[in-house]
Amino acid sequence: MTHVPEQTIGRLPLYLRCLRQARGIGMPVINSLNLAQMAGTNAAQVRKDLSYLGELGTRGIGYDVESLMAHISAVLGLTEKRRVAIVGFGRLGAALLGYPGFSERGFDIVAVFDSDPAKIGTEEGSLRVSPLEVLEEVLQDLKVEIVILATPTSAAQVMAQRVADAGIRAIMNFTHERLDLHGDVRIQSVDLSVELQVLSFYLERSI
Amino acid sequence: MTHVPEQTIGRLPLYLRCLRQARGIGMPVINSLNLAQMAGTNAAQVRKDLSYLGELGTRGIGYDVESLMAHISAVLGLTEKRRVAIVGFGRLGAALLGYPGFSERGFDIVAVFDSDPAKIGTEEGSLRVSPLEVLEEVLQDLKVEIVILATPTSAAQVMAQRVADAGIRAIMNFTHERLDLHGDVRIQSVDLSVELQVLSFYLERSI
Repeated sequence: MTHVPEQTIGRLPLYLRCLRQARGIGMPVINSLNLAQMAGTNAAQVRKDLSYLGELGTRGIGYDVESLMAHISAVLGLTEKRRVAIVGFGRLGAALLGYPGFSERGFDIVAVFDSDPAKIGTEEGSLRVSPLEVLEEVLQDLKVEIVILATPTSAAQVMAQRVADAGIRAIMNFTHERLDLHGDVRIQSVDLSVELQVLSFYLERSI
Repeated sequence: MTHVPEQTIGRLPLYLRCLRQARGIGMPVINSLNLAQMAGTNAAQVRKDLSYLGELGTRGIGYDVESLMAHISAVLGLTEKRRVAIVGFGRLGAALLGYPGFSERGFDIVAVFDSDPAKIGTEEGSLRVSPLEVLEEVLQDLKVEIVILATPTSAAQVMAQRVADAGIRAIMNFTHERLDLHGDVRIQSVDLSVELQVLSFYLERSI
């Protein structure tokens, strides 16, 4: 596979969701225009994005929904379960543990950590909140691949470096801290206010 | 202002965040390459995106950080506070109420709603959880502009249509439901698993 641009990678999960919806309403084949409309982009963009993944689709007909889903899932490495831990079990951490979209997409949360003695040891579904003292040990024992960082911003940098030092190479950062880590760690930062700012743009324009 | 492409709009909040960080470390001027590196894109993309907003920046020097921030904020309609309500006060709704990034970016949460009698009337900071029976009335009385939808998926479509019928034109959808609304309503759907899927891609590639 050739180098896939970062922005294409960011759109693959969206295409996957649209394909799942298409399958849900019984569409066996979808063309680039329909997929683009569902994804809020244009047909040329869809064709270009998917061209990075290989020779897919049939000219004049479209893409086989089931096989395109399988293909994108394989490219995204979603064909097996990924083991995820949450560091920071405040309101956001708790909400993320309960977020149904993670397990539906193959992400299993296998551990949660907090520093608050009142939370440590409490049961959350089938999990127990672990103390930060055992972070490295638990991440390794449970073969965690991705850490969701949901600590207060002040603790983010220190905790992220501990996570990286424990061998984790993928961090989803929900804090506002711009993380600066040694080593080969991929960080995806999430800013939930981005969507509100986009909505604000449309409110402003339509007045 | 010319028509601004949807993908450019989606990147403006990111540029704004990068500019805020640049200002934070005392940079008065930034060039497109630096801004691109911070935002994880390329310089040509930055220049193209910002060209939609007018004649900004000086060739060979770059953009004045303060004035570019002011300009993007104005385009995004962030120069005044936006009034926001949360519908659905489960774990996710509660986490969103406590999310510091919203008020920092000028989004004030002025009301929260739930159907659960055990939650209705309870105090959350300076707010009280309101029953859904008064949804339309409260949205109008408090001049809410944006609704964050954090209900169970099964209730999403019905609640979204009520919100739209009450005159709200911007909805941030945290449910998995693909909303289908009458009228001129802008919907931004948030799927928190997208970032995990992107991380999964990089884990898969680097093995």
